[in-house]
Amino acid sequence: MKVGVLGTGVVGRTLADRLVELSNEVRMGSRSADGEAVTQWASAAGERGSAGTFADAADYGEVVINATAGMRSLDAIGTVDPWSVDGKVLIDVANPLDFSTGALKLSVCNTDSLCEQIQRALPGARVVKSLNTMNCEVMVHPEIVPGDHVAFVCGNDEGAKQTVADLLGTFGWPAERVVDLGGIEAARGAEMILPLWLSIMMKKGGGRFNFALLGG
Amino acid sequence: MKVGVLGTGVVGRTLADRLVELSNEVRMGSRSADGEAVTQWASAAGERGSAGTFADAADYGEVVINATAGMRSLDAIGTVDPWSVDGKVLIDVANPLDFSTGALKLSVCNTDSLCEQIQRALPGARVVKSLNTMNCEVMVHPEIVPGDHVAFVCGNDEGAKQTVADLLGTFGWPAERVVDLGGIEAARGAEMILPLWLSIMMKKGGGRFNFALLGG
Repeated sequence: MKVGVLGTGVVGRTLADRLVELSNEVRMGSRSADGEAVTQWASAAGERGSAGTFADAADYGEVVINATAGMRSLDAIGTVDPWSVDGKVLIDVANPLDFSTGALKLSVCNTDSLCEQIQRALPGARVVKSLNTMNCEVMVHPEIVPGDHVAFVCGNDEGAKQTVADLLGTFGWPAERVVDLGGIEAARGAEMILPLWLSIMMKKGGGRFNFALLGG
Repeated sequence: MKVGVLGTGVVGRTLADRLVELSNEVRMGSRSADGEAVTQWASAAGERGSAGTFADAADYGEVVINATAGMRSLDAIGTVDPWSVDGKVLIDVANPLDFSTGALKLSVCNTDSLCEQIQRALPGARVVKSLNTMNCEVMVHPEIVPGDHVAFVCGNDEGAKQTVADLLGTFGWPAERVVDLGGIEAARGAEMILPLWLSIMMKKGGGRFNFALLGG
């Protein structure tokens, strides 16, 4: 499958590497197609990897992943031609973490979410929030955390959520551990878990953990 | 131990019943000491239960629990004499859930929390956020959810968090499943998990579940 990965940070590179390893063809998108991070990645990725702008990567992918830093996601998404992603599954794994004031806060929450902002910016895309509630190593290798921890999906298109669950399956997520939270408004809750996640990460001194749901 | 429980709703009654069952003396506080809910509870609770105002219950307890509805918590807390809770452990189990607009939102989040508002209103109290991330049946009988799910505590007083962990131990929570998130600012994260909790509750059709932390 052709996948466009927006973002050249550790999350984007980790996802893109795993997708290439799993025989997908990946175009990583950056602000400029000849940026150092994106060209280095493409060069190391081999014949299944290529570099482009955010718009190039979104146009290239059958599935598109937003792995940009949350505070920059809307700028990146704003450069994408909406028609180029019409009908495509767009997986938003970003978190609107705003460290600009020194203290942690989210740039959007409670009555809106980054995921909904992205959906409004690209109304023809089938946007699914997923994987934002964990470290990127856990995203692509769930087996590094023992036990039945979970990945959430939410969005307004059932087929798109199934596509995401299938892709997560190739990463190693069993279907029964992909938990559908409902429509895209549920992305508020998925994003609002980040302050708790960060408290736990600081306590544990690392990100190789995840949430499980017991009972019910 | 003498415990003041503020709030006569299902959360307050469930906690108060369990505390009485465990041989604590409990005064439940309500807006008026002769309100129907609070007098009925005290009458059913027997000799270890009594009824009062919010202020009476806070004054009575060696430990005080805020189990009022989150949107009413500051009004209830505002009737408490700050000197009456000086140095006391105050456990805040409430969530600032605001359903007034039809859609779910929190009345405070991100850069502040209900727990911090309560701490500012009662600066001499040793406020600890705990138990707000689960259904009240799970709070007092963790064994109804199988497995190593967790309860969070946070607050600025280490001794107060230990007192809460000990009290949770009498409910059935092993010490290793009481997770200290750090200072009182971590209450933002604990409260912001509620939208996700509610999405899961709606999906499961009930509240008898809880989060576990795996790995790390």
